[in-house]
Amino acid sequence: MKNQAIPKATAKRLPLYYRYLKVLLDSGKTKVSSTELSDAVKVDSATIRRDFSYFGELGKRGYGYDVESLLEFFSKTLSEDRLTNVALIGVGNLGNALLKYGFHQNNNIRISAAFDVREDLVGRIVDGIPVYPMSDMESQIKLQQIEIAILAIPASEAQDTANLLINAGIKGIMNFTPVRLTTPKHVQVQSVDLTNELQTLIYFLNHYTESEE
Amino acid sequence: MKNQAIPKATAKRLPLYYRYLKVLLDSGKTKVSSTELSDAVKVDSATIRRDFSYFGELGKRGYGYDVESLLEFFSKTLSEDRLTNVALIGVGNLGNALLKYGFHQNNNIRISAAFDVREDLVGRIVDGIPVYPMSDMESQIKLQQIEIAILAIPASEAQDTANLLINAGIKGIMNFTPVRLTTPKHVQVQSVDLTNELQTLIYFLNHYTESEE
Repeated sequence: MKNQAIPKATAKRLPLYYRYLKVLLDSGKTKVSSTELSDAVKVDSATIRRDFSYFGELGKRGYGYDVESLLEFFSKTLSEDRLTNVALIGVGNLGNALLKYGFHQNNNIRISAAFDVREDLVGRIVDGIPVYPMSDMESQIKLQQIEIAILAIPASEAQDTANLLINAGIKGIMNFTPVRLTTPKHVQVQSVDLTNELQTLIYFLNHYTESEE
Repeated sequence: MKNQAIPKATAKRLPLYYRYLKVLLDSGKTKVSSTELSDAVKVDSATIRRDFSYFGELGKRGYGYDVESLLEFFSKTLSEDRLTNVALIGVGNLGNALLKYGFHQNNNIRISAAFDVREDLVGRIVDGIPVYPMSDMESQIKLQQIEIAILAIPASEAQDTANLLINAGIKGIMNFTPVRLTTPKHVQVQSVDLTNELQTLIYFLNHYTESEE
């Protein structure tokens, strides 16, 4: 599966398709058309058909796509068939909410270790997850062979902590700090900057009218 | 400023530029080149120059861009010169973290009202923000003329609540539920699906190597 030429924009839509197809399967539906899928996930049907074309022949034209085959295929593609352990760095307000977020409920994603500087948190189990001191971060990540970390710490600590994480073997960082991290090429960073998202929304409201987009 | 032709991709980068330019100004810097800006915000300098070209003549070639002029321009563009009140719907784990997130610290964005179903929360002031019952949502949003809402409630309630919000005059929704909302054309939705982001990151790790992108 390495190096296949799926555009990033397509890759970003896969989890969306996957989630909706699971809903369909649970409700007993066996076929879905690109139009129905389009209505549900708010992606135009031409884009859906193009996206699906990257994955070979998954459905017959005119009959719609087979829900179970699609799900099986996406499940493999999204690695949902194996458990992914994730480290949470920072158990402040946002980190705490992420611990309780339930990534694991519909997905094989599990926060398996949390790290914080606060002495009243370290050594405790929060929502089933052990909280380690920051000084144990590198050793625990190596020991548990964790490759993905969620960064929910103050901006001032972000780059230094990212450097430690990468030294420990982390290959993907979900970055909740507003810092644009400098990382080696083999490390993927997915940034979720909440202020940025909100500012963008406000900007769009002020500058785009319904006639556009 | 209505209807000007700034591409959405450019608009999404404006808050990034803005935040970094404020850091520069605070540190006493008066000029910045597209290369320096590129290093800081991780956007290639050709893209930065193209982005800036949409805003007319903001800097002289060869001398770099004037930090203060850029900031003043972006500040107007991003409506940072006026306060934007936002409603928070749902004060659970994530909503509570968002209340404490400090959108207001560097921006004129303020959560001015929160809404929840829980009786132990309603009527209380949490982090300076009053929590109203859901039954007051429409009237309070109309009264306070709030145009933007953050949706941090269970998925099962998302569409119905969005409909009520839109009836009350909300024009922008920052959607933290995994539901793809159906909304009229004049309503902008910015979705932040944390599971989706994490799945995408895992997918990229498994399928893209450093030679790509």
